Amino acid sequence: MILENTCILLHGDGALALERSRISSGDMESGSVLLRMIAAEVCGTDVHLKHRRLDTVPYPIIPGHVAVGRVVAMVGSVRDVDGMQIEEGAVVTYLDVIDTCNSCVSCLVDKESTRCPKRRVLGITCRADPRDVKGLLGGWSSHIYLPPNTKIIRLPEVLPPRVFMAGGCGLPTALHAIERAGIKLMDRVLVQGSGPVGLLAALLARLSGALQVIVTGAPEHRLEVVKRFGIDSTVNIEKAAPSERVAIVRDLTNGRMADVVIEVTGRPEAIPEGMSFCRDGGTYVVVGQYTNNGDAVVNPHHLINRKHLTVKGCWGSDFSHFYKGVQLMAKHVDLPWDSVISQTVRLGDVEKALLQVEKLGIFKALVEEPEAEKAS
Amino acid sequence: MILENTCILLHGDGALALERSRISSGDMESGSVLLRMIAAEVCGTDVHLKHRRLDTVPYPIIPGHVAVGRVVAMVGSVRDVDGMQIEEGAVVTYLDVIDTCNSCVSCLVDKESTRCPKRRVLGITCRADPRDVKGLLGGWSSHIYLPPNTKIIRLPEVLPPRVFMAGGCGLPTALHAIERAGIKLMDRVLVQGSGPVGLLAALLARLSGALQVIVTGAPEHRLEVVKRFGIDSTVNIEKAAPSERVAIVRDLTNGRMADVVIEVTGRPEAIPEGMSFCRDGGTYVVVGQYTNNGDAVVNPHHLINRKHLTVKGCWGSDFSHFYKGVQLMAKHVDLPWDSVISQTVRLGDVEKALLQVEKLGIFKALVEEPEAEKAS
Amino acid sequence: MILENTCILLHGDGALALERSRISSGDMESGSVLLRMIAAEVCGTDVHLKHRRLDTVPYPIIPGHVAVGRVVAMVGSVRDVDGMQIEEGAVVTYLDVIDTCNSCVSCLVDKESTRCPKRRVLGITCRADPRDVKGLLGGWSSHIYLPPNTKIIRLPEVLPPRVFMAGGCGLPTALHAIERAGIKLMDRVLVQGSGPVGLLAALLARLSGALQVIVTGAPEHRLEVVKRFGIDSTVNIEKAAPSERVAIVRDLTNGRMADVVIEVTGRPEAIPEGMSFCRDGGTYVVVGQYTNNGDAVVNPHHLINRKHLTVKGCWGSDFSHFYKGVQLMAKHVDLPWDSVISQTVRLGDVEKALLQVEKLGIFKALVEEPEAEKAS
Amino acid sequence: MILENTCILLHGDGALALERSRISSGDMESGSVLLRMIAAEVCGTDVHLKHRRLDTVPYPIIPGHVAVGRVVAMVGSVRDVDGMQIEEGAVVTYLDVIDTCNSCVSCLVDKESTRCPKRRVLGITCRADPRDVKGLLGGWSSHIYLPPNTKIIRLPEVLPPRVFMAGGCGLPTALHAIERAGIKLMDRVLVQGSGPVGLLAALLARLSGALQVIVTGAPEHRLEVVKRFGIDSTVNIEKAAPSERVAIVRDLTNGRMADVVIEVTGRPEAIPEGMSFCRDGGTYVVVGQYTNNGDAVVNPHHLINRKHLTVKGCWGSDFSHFYKGVQLMAKHVDLPWDSVISQTVRLGDVEKALLQVEKLGIFKALVEEPEAEKAS
Repeated sequence: MILENTCILLHGDGALALERSRISSGDMESGSVLLRMIAAEVCGTDVHLKHRRLDTVPYPIIPGHVAVGRVVAMVGSVRDVDGMQIEEGAVVTYLDVIDTCNSCVSCLVDKESTRCPKRRVLGITCRADPRDVKGLLGGWSSHIYLPPNTKIIRLPEVLPPRVFMAGGCGLPTALHAIERAGIKLMDRVLVQGSGPVGLLAALLARLSGALQVIVTGAPEHRLEVVKRFGIDSTVNIEKAAPSERVAIVRDLTNGRMADVVIEVTGRPEAIPEGMSFCRDGGTYVVVGQYTNNGDAVVNPHHLINRKHLTVKGCWGSDFSHFYKGVQLMAKHVDLPWDSVISQTVRLGDVEKALLQVEKLGIFKALVEEPEAEKAS
Repeated sequence: MILENTCILLHGDGALALERSRISSGDMESGSVLLRMIAAEVCGTDVHLKHRRLDTVPYPIIPGHVAVGRVVAMVGSVRDVDGMQIEEGAVVTYLDVIDTCNSCVSCLVDKESTRCPKRRVLGITCRADPRDVKGLLGGWSSHIYLPPNTKIIRLPEVLPPRVFMAGGCGLPTALHAIERAGIKLMDRVLVQGSGPVGLLAALLARLSGALQVIVTGAPEHRLEVVKRFGIDSTVNIEKAAPSERVAIVRDLTNGRMADVVIEVTGRPEAIPEGMSFCRDGGTYVVVGQYTNNGDAVVNPHHLINRKHLTVKGCWGSDFSHFYKGVQLMAKHVDLPWDSVISQTVRLGDVEKALLQVEKLGIFKALVEEPEAEKAS
Repeated sequence: MILENTCILLHGDGALALERSRISSGDMESGSVLLRMIAAEVCGTDVHLKHRRLDTVPYPIIPGHVAVGRVVAMVGSVRDVDGMQIEEGAVVTYLDVIDTCNSCVSCLVDKESTRCPKRRVLGITCRADPRDVKGLLGGWSSHIYLPPNTKIIRLPEVLPPRVFMAGGCGLPTALHAIERAGIKLMDRVLVQGSGPVGLLAALLARLSGALQVIVTGAPEHRLEVVKRFGIDSTVNIEKAAPSERVAIVRDLTNGRMADVVIEVTGRPEAIPEGMSFCRDGGTYVVVGQYTNNGDAVVNPHHLINRKHLTVKGCWGSDFSHFYKGVQLMAKHVDLPWDSVISQTVRLGDVEKALLQVEKLGIFKALVEEPEAEKAS
Repeated sequence: MILENTCILLHGDGALALERSRISSGDMESGSVLLRMIAAEVCGTDVHLKHRRLDTVPYPIIPGHVAVGRVVAMVGSVRDVDGMQIEEGAVVTYLDVIDTCNSCVSCLVDKESTRCPKRRVLGITCRADPRDVKGLLGGWSSHIYLPPNTKIIRLPEVLPPRVFMAGGCGLPTALHAIERAGIKLMDRVLVQGSGPVGLLAALLARLSGALQVIVTGAPEHRLEVVKRFGIDSTVNIEKAAPSERVAIVRDLTNGRMADVVIEVTGRPEAIPEGMSFCRDGGTYVVVGQYTNNGDAVVNPHHLINRKHLTVKGCWGSDFSHFYKGVQLMAKHVDLPWDSVISQTVRLGDVEKALLQVEKLGIFKALVEEPEAEKAS
């Protein structure tokens, strides 16, 4: 089968190139799957990728790490993790992390598979080639190639692709953060950051039985979205100086401060502030320092030692987070997910959406391709 | 019974005053115990106390938080934690932390009793009065008053007071640090700091089944003591620049770095260095930032988030650490504890010992009072 | 102040005696509090007490371990765990467990305070004496004496006494069980037992973010109450043989079985069945074997070893569970608690309610005393 | 290369057949390794295999799950878990568990890889065929075939094969049990069972810093071996009735009972006894119920619920246990391992050794093949 493909290529020079090519499904490897893209995400990582802020990205790449698509071709029998056969025509999503080796010390001894050195991420650390079906390794493409052993999940019927994408790549990250946080029933939880991952972390804290969930962040339109998800309180950091914020959190928590604080800001200066939001003996989870934005200045006597604090870094996510993310979205399909997807664009307009994401002008954007546009 | 007492008083002006007084055991409270001091410790905290480096110390105080003594008087029936009656003439030690309330949110809900606001420490945060038997609240005194409900342990017969004091106040702290560290059989452990707590943390790591234990510290004479306790390797930080040290640790661990690093230095700059000694997914325990020595500068992307690090502050210790410390010393009485006690002085000479401790000129000093010097 | 008191006394001969007496608040100890009872519970434990099924009960006792009352007298200043002064006229509840010693090995070293040998429970293991105010140590009494150091909590204004009592004594137990279970977001949870604790454990599992909650139990009217609390599925054990139940649970969980099973039945034969409801590597919490009802027969190869199961016994509860229980009820006051309280009686009619509880004829009964009946 | 092979084949009829065959290394798969056997184990599992006591064994098999051999052939480049190239002539061992899929719910979501349904064990659940090099899937064979992706470790030079085999297959199991037990410094540990796994579990408890280690078992010659490894006390169960044993353990532990008890007996009746050896709030690990030997009768009120016990089943082991086992043996090469290996036989005499193992007449037997017997 010969297919017409359209994709966005990043060469690492800051420009987005729309590439059209003809590919052949005959070049697919045994065990691989080819999807027709239904929806892919435009997220903050894509801003970093555009500006070459991540190490070791093998440009050119096709951005878009989490996506949903319809199976248009596969070679041999492919099964999902529950042992069910994947079939042509099925609407599926997949874990964007591939090649975790299960053969190294990180995978087998330390059991920290997110630190496996072989690990690659579709749409981020996989070199793309639009002329070869095997090079369609990213979501901003009308077709997406899933190499052999990609972990695939069929989307439950109750879960529309667009709702699933409202969780998107932030959901496994947020689930991993919540797992690291070890939230217990009746914990007070504060989330620093009101972007997609911040919203989801706050929501998951609420669903985990938190007594109270507070989100600090900005701008106001993002906090408005957060509030629609049943979060108890928000603090707009553009309207309160750091010292005021500590006082506000003290008030909101009746002087107790938070049992658990989750950082999802990307700003180093958020670290000491977040520690000061924790109660003595509390837990602080650092999720948002995905890129190097400089140093944090921390007083270890006051904020770590004397506070008897537990701080947990949280890197990436594994299949369990992705799997549970699908279950969670299917269970909570009735939440106001529409308010999360601020903008939906076609592939040709993705740059506009990316600029909006960069300016925090919108909450989240999706690329969608109408399914009618059939391949020949 | 009227007793002659000699003690050292700190008024908070940097001077040590030798005070002689007559006290009456008739003024003791019901449930209290009076000890004749056998041995008390001179430790780094006493240097801080002399220089007024700790907050909220209610000067004047009698320093000396951990001590061993012989029971000379008691009012009513007093039992140890195993339910055994304390008897006159018994050689005992005691938990220096008193007044933990078991009635506040820290004690009862958070279960972080070392953060109980009512908690006081004999020899540190108890105001002393040498004219009143109830004011003999520190170890640098020929008699020590243990208020009602002080947790007392009879020293096992196999455990000489001087050996117990070689563990001293550092041992419960080190046991707490090891508990926070969660060391598992075959972990690689690195301890930053070669003072009494550093030595003990390294020893406890070895006894917990570490594959390998490394200590970084200085000066050399302290590292010499550390080596006598079966520690695999030491790194003299006066002889290697920070960047060299990372390379040395990488070599020593066959490129794996440490599963667990325990900081016992008191220096903020040790924090980022210690984090860089950890493997990805490792654990970093911060114990040594007992006083405020300024800020640490940490890159949260490289050292926390991407490293998937777990950092644990560790404050104080509770009765379980103290209790297990006595058991541990009784079990390991044959280790070269003599090499730890560099100097033994009488009360009148404690200032000399304190100066040596301040200069790191010695490993550890004890105050001892000969038992023959009986009270009238 | 002289008060007229009415209470129910159990002498251990199976009979309930209504006792009237005059008591004097002048006999109260310093730090004690006297309540006018508003509501007290009639629970399954009271059935055991009537039939002398518990060891070491020092009859006569006044049953009723958890209750709500209004402060009518106190001696000296009494503070709650948050440090707030308790005032006359306040509506309060209290931890029924008193005298936990915080001085023994269980309390201080093992940190298993629910196994402290000094621990007594109001309404269960406290000998009562209706002629002495200090002997009013149970809830089935118009006045309840809270000895010094009883842990008291003021009921939040949003939380009516009757709603709080719908949680009642089962709530701390259920919170303890949930803590032992370590439920994580998206776990499948099964609860064996549909009485008050079973209902609450299932509810708490739901509030902790379980993907799915299943309750097995009987009779049907109890399962009807359970369903009103948003539990996903119930299995009536009177209508399905044991082998069928395993098949039903397999179906309900898509072949996965439960990540966590919580036993709240009191029946030994529930143990092997509950283990078979767990997935490999799952967790089984045993809460319901509060009295000795005989042996369980378990195949350790199939059900423990090969299944890689974790089994956790759960005894009693501590202050943290009680404290969080009050917070939880205040947060979830809008749940259909009315359906839990099947019957409300005056003290004189408590025997009728007790018979209904014994026959499982009702879900739960309360004793209430109208507040207008003022003391002279 | 054509090689002469000799192996022992079990057909499942209780007989051991010595098979000679000629095999060709040309039939090996890419990524596979062929070993010349140096030493293989004769263990209790082999007794079960002879008597067909395990489910789902695909007879015929070549027994011998853990072994050491020298690499005589390999196809392509094979690396160990540390990334080092495996070379011809190297002395290696390997994880006997193969085919763990890393693609199913057990592997990826539950993270219980020892319950992966695809998992097979060399020497136990791999069908053998002596005429095909790919069928040499067990240790009782002059050559052993390691299929692609078998996890291989080069034996450190300090570690002689015979010393490593003294740990043998019991060591990963014991390490897994110790991990499940969560032993902490100063825990009192009791091990039920004095066979190879019992000895190792007791040793690992000692190396983990246990205050005290007690082993209950029989016959006396096995307890004698245990004592040589520094175990504090042994209790011969042939010389003390069950009720006496509880009293003995109470005495040995000063009335405290054990913090952790590890069962390695294979006898169901050991379960309630082992639970009664635990302190309230203690941990009980069930390792020895590897085959179905019938039911255990347990009083859940006394032994689980009221005791607030934690019980942990422990199935199989994974690569981390195997990897750490090699490190541990290399570190502790000076322990009296000679006393563990009671008998060494050639392949032709393995039945005699197996009979001795079955009668508990010896501690442990090895099959060894002199390396001089070179292949043609």
